[in-house]
Parts: sequence; C-alpha cells; structure tokens
Amino acid sequence: TALVLAVQILGLSAVIIVAVWMGHFRGGFAWQSDPAKEFNFHPVFMVIGMIFLYSDGILAYRVFRNMKKLYIKILHGMIHLGALIFSAVGLKAVFDSHNLAKNPIPNMYSLHSWMGIITVVLFGLQWLSGLTSFLFPGLSMGLKKQYMPHHVFWGIAILTMAGATALMGITEKALFMMKTFPENGSKIPVLDYSHKPPEGILMNCLGIVIVTL
Amino acid sequence: TALVLAVQILGLSAVIIVAVWMGHFRGGFAWQSDPAKEFNFHPVFMVIGMIFLYSDGILAYRVFRNMKKLYIKILHGMIHLGALIFSAVGLKAVFDSHNLAKNPIPNMYSLHSWMGIITVVLFGLQWLSGLTSFLFPGLSMGLKKQYMPHHVFWGIAILTMAGATALMGITEKALFMMKTFPENGSKIPVLDYSHKPPEGILMNCLGIVIVTL
Ligand code: HEM
Ligand code: HEM
Ligand code: HEM
Ligand code: HEM
Ligand SMILES: O=C1O[C@@H]([C@@H](O)CO)C(O)=C1O
Repeated sequence: TALVLAVQILGLSAVIIVAVWMGHFRGGFAWQSDPAKEFNFHPVFMVIGMIFLYSDGILAYRVFRNMKKLYIKILHGMIHLGALIFSAVGLKAVFDSHNLAKNPIPNMYSLHSWMGIITVVLFGLQWLSGLTSFLFPGLSMGLKKQYMPHHVFWGIAILTMAGATALMGITEKALFMMKTFPENGSKIPVLDYSHKPPEGILMNCLGIVIVTL
Repeated sequence: TALVLAVQILGLSAVIIVAVWMGHFRGGFAWQSDPAKEFNFHPVFMVIGMIFLYSDGILAYRVFRNMKKLYIKILHGMIHLGALIFSAVGLKAVFDSHNLAKNPIPNMYSLHSWMGIITVVLFGLQWLSGLTSFLFPGLSMGLKKQYMPHHVFWGIAILTMAGATALMGITEKALFMMKTFPENGSKIPVLDYSHKPPEGILMNCLGIVIVTL
C-alpha cells in the first residue's frame, strides 16, 4: 500500500541522511583506531537498527500477505534480530568512543543514554517473548491470544521510544557541535543538514502508527 | 480507574519537578525584567500546558462518565483551551528570553524549536476542528462519525510529539548547563535532578496510550 511505500522511502532517507551527515560532514568512520570517528558509527547503526529495520520488521506482515504464516514469522523475527545486532554494534561504538578517548568521557550520564538503554533492553525482551510465545510450540493457543495485543502494543510503544531517543541523540550531537562554534565567531549552529533525519524518523513512527492502527 | 490515578500522579510530579528544577536550582522566575529568569517559565508552562493539562483534557471522558455529554465536551474543550493558553505564555517566555538578552540569541534554529512549533500549531488546529465539529450544531452526524477516529488518533499523536519535544528540551537545557561545567573542573553534568521529569512525561504518554487503546 501507499503507506508501506511511504515508510520505506522515509526510513531509507533517514538512513542515507545520517550516513551522509556522519560520513561526509563529521569526518567519516573508523573503528577502535580512532574513537572520535568510531562515534560516527553510533548514529548510523542505531538508525538502521532501531528505526529502519525495526519498522520494516513490523511491516513484514503487511507486505507479504500471501506468504505462508510460518515464513513471515521467521522473517519478522529475523529482521528484528538484525535490528538488535545493528543496535548492539552501534552501542559498542559509543561506549568505545567514550572509553578509548584520550580524555575518557563518562558513560550513561544523559537522559538520551538512559532512555536508549531502556529502549534496547525492552526491545531485547520483546524479541525473546515474541520468540518463545509464537515460534516455539510449547504455549497454548489461549495464552498466545492473550499475549498478542500486548506484543503489538509494546512493539509500537518501544518504536516510539526509539524515535524519541534518536531525536534526543540528534539534539545532543547538534549541541556538542555548537560548542565549538563561538570560537568561529558564529552563534548559529550548523543544523541545516541535521533537520531531515528527525523528520524522517518522526514521520516514520507516525506512519507506522497509522498503518498498524 | 488505577490508570487515571497513575496519570494524575505522574503528571503532577512532572509539573512539581520542573517547577522545583527551575524555581530552586535554576534561580527562580522573573518576567521581562530579567530575560534569563524569564526563560525558566518556559519549561514549567510547557509541561503544565502540553503535558499535564493535555493529558487531563483527554481523560475527562474517562473520569466523568456519568455527567451529561454536553458538559464533558465543554470541560474537555476548556481544559485544552487552558493547555493552549499556558503553552502560548510558555512560548512568549522563551522568545522574550532570546530577544531581550543582552546578546540576543537567534530564534527557531533547533530541532526542539521546530518540533515544538509544529506540535503547538497542530494542537491549535486540533482544537479548532474539535470545536467546529463537535460543539457547533452545523455538522451532520455522518461527518462527525467520520472525523471522530481522526480526532482521537491525532489527539494521541500530537501528545506523543509534545512528549518527544519536551524530552529534547530537557536534553538541550541539560547540555547548555553542562557547557559551564568544565570551568568548575568537573565533566559530569548535573543531571541527577533532571532525570525525573522525562520519566514522568514518558510514563504519562505511555499511560495515556494505554488508557485510550
Ligand atoms: C534509538 C537509537 C539510539 C539509542 C538506543 C542510543 C543509545 C545511546 C546510549 C546508551 C548512549 C550512552 C553511551 C555511553 O554512555 O557511553 C548514547 C550516547 C550518545 N548518543 Fe545515542 N542512541 C541512539 C541514537 C542516536 C542518534 C541518532 C544520535 C545522533 C545523531 C546519537 C547521539 C549520541 C551522542 C552524542 C552520545 C554521547 C553523549 C551521551 O552519552 O548522551 N544517538 N546513545
Ligand atoms: C523486538 C522484536 C519484535 C517487535 C518489536 C515486534 C513487533 C510486532 C508488531 C508491532 C506487530 C504488529 C504488526 C501489525 O499489526 O501489522 C507484531 C506482530 C506479530 N509478531 Fe512481533 N515483534 C517482535 C518479535 C517477534 C518475534 C521474535 C516473533 C516470533 C516469531 C513475533 C511474532 C509475531 C506474530 C505472530 C505477530 C502477529 C502477526 C499477525 O498475525 O498479525 N514477533 N510484532
Ligand atoms: C512540548 C513542550 C515544549 C514546546 C512545544 C517547546 C517549544 C519551544 C520553542 C518553539 C522554542 C524556540 C524559541 C525561540 O527560538 O526563541 C523553544 C526553545 C527552548 N526550549 Fe522549549 N518547548 C517545550 C518544552 C521544553 C522543556 C520541557 C524544556 C527544558 C526543560 C525546554 C527547553 C528549551 C530551551 C533550552 C530552548 C532554547 C534553545 C532552542 O531554541 O532550542 N523546552 N522551545
Ligand atoms: C487540541 C485539543 C484537543 C485534543 C488534543 C483532543 C483529544 C481528544 C482525544 C485523545 C479523545 C479521545 C478520548 C478517549 O478516547 O478517551 C477525544 C475525544 C473527544 N473530543 Fe477531543 N480533543 C481536543 C479538543 C476538542 C474540542 C474543542 C472538542 C469540542 C467540544 C472535542 C470533542 C471531543 C469529543 C466529542 C470526543 C469524543 C468522546 C467520546 O465520545 O468518547 N475535542 N479528544
Ligand atoms: O559525550 C560526548 O561528547 C561529545 C564530544 O566529545 C564531541 O562531539 C561526543 O561526541 C560524545 O560522545
């Protein structure tokens, strides 16, 4: 449908925009050899994992309507597993960028980091409970039916939290960048190119909510 | 119900915590005579308007179940009008704090401010369309029925946007405060007391979504 397409386009744009932001404007990428550039992997991997793959995983049931239910389940679960893996790498990247810096930066001090950890942990739990409830044969049909609305509700709630976390992350990064600006004599921060990702993310969330309502 | 009570308690705590944060830790309040202190009204008024009154307005239909429908409508509309008024004053306070500062600060550069304006404008439109559709006698019953699900969907979507905007605002304020910290020799920002409002806000949103689902 048109909404599924819209979510794809917005999600992909968000990924491309963060990648360009970090890769082009923020100096590109490196792993542990250069912690400051390792940081740049964080936004990119988090957006791929917690926004793009996350939404796509949810949409699997809408897109492949005529596939066998079991196959869609596996696809849905695998995409969310992918989301979890990207997120884990993205988190490793920030923590490294703090710990391996010449002047190490404290961890977990910000609202962004608190919300972020809660979001990823809840996502992990959601994944585990989805897996045990719907893919393993153990559970009775009645229990599955009871859990289903909670699975859907939390799936959307955690996506909203991920969106809000990403917006806070972008705000933080923008303000950290602003810090060096007074030295250049200018007060207006370079936010021109940072305004699109959140738009994408926001509309993405909105799109998903609309689709799933 | 328990959820309504929970939302009340969380909403009130959020208001009290921001008020204490601004009033006690950030130096208190003033109007145009002291733009820096005038800023402090911004978070307080925005949280009262866009979080507390907003949620309470929505809950009116749940709380006063046995009241006459017309009265609840008026109450619901009035609370949301109150939310709009508090928000307008809160916005006046930030703009003043930027424009009247000795070194004026540019307006509308941040993601927070963009999302914030969009949120308040959408809220205003929602209010107007609610008023014209449900309180004036003109519209046919069929059109009202058609508009209702959109009214509810957007009501919740805009509340979520308000929550995300507030979280970004808190993040900004926290980082602006952090800026002065290296001079004190410490790198860890004073976020200890700032961690509660977003929790309140977040859970508020969640609570509302749960209630209204
Ligand atoms: C939903 C996606 C995201 C999650 C779950 C997340 C999570 C986290 C976590 C847990 C930390 C703490 C790392 C530490 O303390 O060592 C962190 C730090 C950081 N993140 Fe993110 N992040 C996300 C998206 C983003 C995005 C999109 C950006 C920016 C474009 C960003 C910018 C930052 C910055 C600047 C820091 C360092 C400052 C701080 O600790 O708050 N994040 N993130
Ligand atoms: C953190 C990971 C997960 C998230 C965020 C998530 C989220 C969601 C959401 C939002 C829906 C509603 C889709 C819609 O209404 O179109 C859904 C449906 C569903 N999910 Fe998950 N899910 C996750 C993991 C899993 C896993 C691992 C399984 C097990 C294979 C699973 C099984 C299902 C099933 C069976 C449905 C019902 C589809 C239907 O019949 O409409 N989920 N999930
Ligand atoms: C949903 C509620 C909120 C809305 C709609 C909102 C809206 C806005 C707007 C439109 C501006 C731009 C003013 C200008 O450019 O002159 C602004 C600035 C600001 N707000 Fe908020 N705000 C909200 C909540 C908060 C909260 C809770 C805080 C902090 C605790 C906060 C902190 C700030 C700060 C630090 C600025 C100045 C920096 C900037 O322009 O981004 N805001 N807000
Ligand atoms: C920006 C302001 C407004 C917002 C955010 C808003 C939001 C909402 C929400 C979320 C609901 C669903 C409540 C529930 O499911 O328990 C609702 C219901 C409703 N609203 Fe509004 N509303 C606003 C203004 C108005 C105005 C001005 C009127 C006109 C008097 C109005 C009339 C109604 C009616 C008739 C219902 C249906 C209640 C029912 O029968 O369940 N709304 N509103
Ligand atoms: O905590 C951090 O502060 C900034 C700053 O060090 C440079 O932007 C950054 O990137 C972090 O990860």
